[in-house]
Amino acid sequence: MRAVNVVGYHRNLEAAEVPEPQLEHPWDVIVRIGGAGVCRTDLHILEGQWAEKSGVTLPYTIGHENAGWVHAVGSAVTNVREGDKVILHPLITCGLCRACRSGDDVHCESSAFPGIDTNGGYAEYLRTSARSVVRIDDSLEPSDVAALADAGLTAYHAAAKAARRLTPRDRCVVIGAGGLGHIGIQVLKALTPAELIVVDRNADAVKLAVSIGADHGIVADGNQVGAVRELTGGAGAEVVVDFVGEGGATSEGIRMLRRAGDYHVVGYGEDVVVPTIDIISTEINLIGNLVGSYNDLCDLMALAARGAVTLHTTKYPLDDFQQALDDLTAGNVRGRAILVP
Amino acid sequence: MRAVNVVGYHRNLEAAEVPEPQLEHPWDVIVRIGGAGVCRTDLHILEGQWAEKSGVTLPYTIGHENAGWVHAVGSAVTNVREGDKVILHPLITCGLCRACRSGDDVHCESSAFPGIDTNGGYAEYLRTSARSVVRIDDSLEPSDVAALADAGLTAYHAAAKAARRLTPRDRCVVIGAGGLGHIGIQVLKALTPAELIVVDRNADAVKLAVSIGADHGIVADGNQVGAVRELTGGAGAEVVVDFVGEGGATSEGIRMLRRAGDYHVVGYGEDVVVPTIDIISTEINLIGNLVGSYNDLCDLMALAARGAVTLHTTKYPLDDFQQALDDLTAGNVRGRAILVP
Amino acid sequence: MRAVNVVGYHRNLEAAEVPEPQLEHPWDVIVRIGGAGVCRTDLHILEGQWAEKSGVTLPYTIGHENAGWVHAVGSAVTNVREGDKVILHPLITCGLCRACRSGDDVHCESSAFPGIDTNGGYAEYLRTSARSVVRIDDSLEPSDVAALADAGLTAYHAAAKAARRLTPRDRCVVIGAGGLGHIGIQVLKALTPAELIVVDRNADAVKLAVSIGADHGIVADGNQVGAVRELTGGAGAEVVVDFVGEGGATSEGIRMLRRAGDYHVVGYGEDVVVPTIDIISTEINLIGNLVGSYNDLCDLMALAARGAVTLHTTKYPLDDFQQALDDLTAGNVRGRAILVP
Amino acid sequence: MRAVNVVGYHRNLEAAEVPEPQLEHPWDVIVRIGGAGVCRTDLHILEGQWAEKSGVTLPYTIGHENAGWVHAVGSAVTNVREGDKVILHPLITCGLCRACRSGDDVHCESSAFPGIDTNGGYAEYLRTSARSVVRIDDSLEPSDVAALADAGLTAYHAAAKAARRLTPRDRCVVIGAGGLGHIGIQVLKALTPAELIVVDRNADAVKLAVSIGADHGIVADGNQVGAVRELTGGAGAEVVVDFVGEGGATSEGIRMLRRAGDYHVVGYGEDVVVPTIDIISTEINLIGNLVGSYNDLCDLMALAARGAVTLHTTKYPLDDFQQALDDLTAGNVRGRAILVP
Repeated sequence: MRAVNVVGYHRNLEAAEVPEPQLEHPWDVIVRIGGAGVCRTDLHILEGQWAEKSGVTLPYTIGHENAGWVHAVGSAVTNVREGDKVILHPLITCGLCRACRSGDDVHCESSAFPGIDTNGGYAEYLRTSARSVVRIDDSLEPSDVAALADAGLTAYHAAAKAARRLTPRDRCVVIGAGGLGHIGIQVLKALTPAELIVVDRNADAVKLAVSIGADHGIVADGNQVGAVRELTGGAGAEVVVDFVGEGGATSEGIRMLRRAGDYHVVGYGEDVVVPTIDIISTEINLIGNLVGSYNDLCDLMALAARGAVTLHTTKYPLDDFQQALDDLTAGNVRGRAILVP
Repeated sequence: MRAVNVVGYHRNLEAAEVPEPQLEHPWDVIVRIGGAGVCRTDLHILEGQWAEKSGVTLPYTIGHENAGWVHAVGSAVTNVREGDKVILHPLITCGLCRACRSGDDVHCESSAFPGIDTNGGYAEYLRTSARSVVRIDDSLEPSDVAALADAGLTAYHAAAKAARRLTPRDRCVVIGAGGLGHIGIQVLKALTPAELIVVDRNADAVKLAVSIGADHGIVADGNQVGAVRELTGGAGAEVVVDFVGEGGATSEGIRMLRRAGDYHVVGYGEDVVVPTIDIISTEINLIGNLVGSYNDLCDLMALAARGAVTLHTTKYPLDDFQQALDDLTAGNVRGRAILVP
Repeated sequence: MRAVNVVGYHRNLEAAEVPEPQLEHPWDVIVRIGGAGVCRTDLHILEGQWAEKSGVTLPYTIGHENAGWVHAVGSAVTNVREGDKVILHPLITCGLCRACRSGDDVHCESSAFPGIDTNGGYAEYLRTSARSVVRIDDSLEPSDVAALADAGLTAYHAAAKAARRLTPRDRCVVIGAGGLGHIGIQVLKALTPAELIVVDRNADAVKLAVSIGADHGIVADGNQVGAVRELTGGAGAEVVVDFVGEGGATSEGIRMLRRAGDYHVVGYGEDVVVPTIDIISTEINLIGNLVGSYNDLCDLMALAARGAVTLHTTKYPLDDFQQALDDLTAGNVRGRAILVP
Repeated sequence: MRAVNVVGYHRNLEAAEVPEPQLEHPWDVIVRIGGAGVCRTDLHILEGQWAEKSGVTLPYTIGHENAGWVHAVGSAVTNVREGDKVILHPLITCGLCRACRSGDDVHCESSAFPGIDTNGGYAEYLRTSARSVVRIDDSLEPSDVAALADAGLTAYHAAAKAARRLTPRDRCVVIGAGGLGHIGIQVLKALTPAELIVVDRNADAVKLAVSIGADHGIVADGNQVGAVRELTGGAGAEVVVDFVGEGGATSEGIRMLRRAGDYHVVGYGEDVVVPTIDIISTEINLIGNLVGSYNDLCDLMALAARGAVTLHTTKYPLDDFQQALDDLTAGNVRGRAILVP
């Protein structure tokens, strides 16, 4: 089959003819790829940032944001059948450790990560596990939802955690209305009655955010902390969800908080630096967020099935992978780039 | 009556004869002081650290950790009567703001703080509110429990918050087995089935911690993070409660955490500095802790009544206030110093 | 002032000229009534059903669902001012008991209930407490929102409790789309992403429910349990909120539940009869719901201010109170009857 | 191997020589039985009460409360090895349904139940799944802990659920200090700071309960509701855990509740009958409890490993199974009867 491989760091990806993956374990599921998201992490992999961390042996097939159709199932698989449309949770988890037994499978003590440390989805077929496949609604197409598998799932997870404490009188600030923030806003609208305030440097992104449900949009021009304080009667917001995490966003985000507020870290890049006295005197919380669990992905797909979460995508034939990466690097992709085999 | 006043910053406290406080509002309660804790914050007040923040007008009576007997009650007071033994919540709160109406009275939008921004308890009498007095068990004496009003309440609050997620399989690290940590350990033993690991630089404090219920004691000798990892099978602890917050404790505390763990900030001094990627890749939480609520104080006094929480105190006559402060400064107080009028 | 009094049981109400209420305690608030809801409970009061329970001395002024303008405030009142538009929480609570200190003021150990055990709102003025008044948005009118003070607040409270566990994959059944159910549906839509299934005997009520957001409407024709099972893939619903509580609704509601489901009792009348083996073998919960707290009322008014919860009302001049009660008895009121002084 | 089979209803069990179970699926685990609890449910099986519900084909091997040593593991098993000491969760669950993925494996949509609907542990060997085995501490012996696999796990689950809301000021009533109640009391002591009140008809059981940590013991003599009210200042208890569920316990348990209290159903037999008006006017909850999850069993074994939960057992050689059942029927077993192959 055709696949697109990492053949070396600081080198371009290369198309190759490789053997189709085969069923090896009873819970294996082979998926015919319908769409594979092109993610900034893919660029970082080529820069070698993940080389040591993943320990992957080159060459291998990249692509960690996948959806498609079930092609074959192992002998123990009962939750999907050949032909089912599915989206893939990014991790293959063990199912036996305490985290897996508690529904927190993202913290599995022994997981694999297709596209990062084993073969991924820039290919015709991919091998995953019964524990990683979520059947999607008939109305959805794999190439349309693939980007929800990782970017969308991360946004969903953070938004759903943030939503737990939000009431009709609360205010939630979203920093960053790009790919993840865009999903996060839609999820927050679906899950909470809180007032949403969206902050972004890009005026168009702010406009878009308001069009999909944000109650207030703030163009970050240096006075965004003051603007949030003004919109919250001087007190600050109960919750801030930061999809940026760099360029000063963390310190601004924390200053936007009300006493006893929650600051959610989702985007990353810079250090959080905050005096302990500020943490205790206002009793704020800094909350980490990783990609979502299998249950989160099921919940997100329920929202997608009813049209409550949508994502703009730009599709490329699999063979045009280099064009997609170049467009991403150049900032020329609207929404998410998806490779379609 | 006799009182001990702040008469200027960078000057000693001075005894004075002042008018007894009178009932002014219907919810006022006048308390005859039975014991007033001498706290490191009192030293900081004299250094002027709170001058701007509190905005208090000098002279005023210091002392924010108080217990005694009800001397007089306003016309609307129904929860205590003259003669009742009481401990005083450190804040006088409004009862009408959203925080007060939610049981989070510590975040009251309009509170007063006797001993900090209004007259406190280094005196024969103090005026507080019906909302701030907690009746104590017959078996308890005001001068024995006064230190639970602030130091103890802070430790209780953090320990009780930390306890919510702790199960019999979890490990909780306590950093610092001094005044607050000592209470925190007792509260954690009473509230949770988790294994307790106590870390302190002082070998005697560690020994004491083990004697009151810690399952493991670690003398911090530079390898304390490694020692915690070893005791937790390499994984780290589900929860760390840091009663120190300076001298490197924050970075060590965070490195002691397991994936998805909670690091509680209680002690303060240094900055927390942590890369956002570390927060998100392990999905940890940094949780602020302020002094406890009125409900927390009621719960703590229930534990004290049954002997589950005790605190060593050294008592001084009120007139020997200077000796108590000198002893505290010199590190010569065992447990908490208490002034008894 | 004019007031409408209960002068005896099994007798009609009577209009009377009575003294205006005066400020007596520092937290008192006198409200000029803008609207007073006419409730089925008012009919039950006249039938004597509350006589023993309330212990009220006749004559007294009826009316427990009130909104209006602040007319005068006691010396300690800081949260409202003369002229403010307010809705009234039905209870006057003490503010000092454990329930009040925890935000569960509905379980106050020493509350009064205007319209039931002290003078209510079928009058020009009413005396309540600072703890019971919620300022409403400029866009709202007292006579439009009065019915949210009790009927709406009960529905909000149950819906908000039910919502805590509801995710995008869950199904919530609402039994009864009348006055309370109508509000409950709107609140559930605002607070949860769950699928809503509404069951009512009245086809018009079902139609209305679907028009305000229910995902499925079922006319109760004897097969409603089967219909719910069918819509939930045979498994039953995660949550059932029963606003009826009589005529067999409890047993039907319980049979609509999925394993580990929650059945919320809101409406009342019949006994719940359920074998313990059914409770444990499916591990279901039966959850009681009383009127909401002060915080619930604040949250509900936030939803009302943005138009997320509306209620049809039919207004009558205060002097036409008998007509309003007659119309209610005859089933001729559309929405809620409101008396306007 | 030797096994003890159900050969017909209303007939005695019979010993038989049967083939050893073999590994058939990759997650299979064969356990050499070290102890199998003799449970009242075993008597009910012989009476035919489970015949229709389980649909099991006779003959089959009875025994659903098992512990032992791992004898062989399937190809995919990674959590235990040959020779490990293990206790067995009573269910074999699928690992793929929503309940399994959420840690609520007891509500698995497709589980098997050895001893009930497939071969159980009155035998030398038993086949279960990697998902059902919990390694136990070196200090514990299979025949000592076997009874924790089902009776103990049920008690743990209810006690742990009840514990979530219990604070130092709360009171928890335990109805029934027999087998399950005995474990429940120990778990509540380990997990909560609440005051424990134990009610039983048997004065010796009450004495034993107090000796293992109950704060108050009440011999049920007809005035037990009054006695609980007296111990709780007239208000009732925040939580009641009913391990009896028959003979009037449900109605008494509900009357022991404080406003907003939780009544936990664990024991079963009679119907719960309660007017809806009583449920809503006091806003109480009736909470079902089934056997615990895999995580609950892990937590319980952590308590057992440190001696916080112990259970008296009477051991019989496997061949004396009839004697064990006769003793159980006659009420002559102290603690739990355990068959040892």
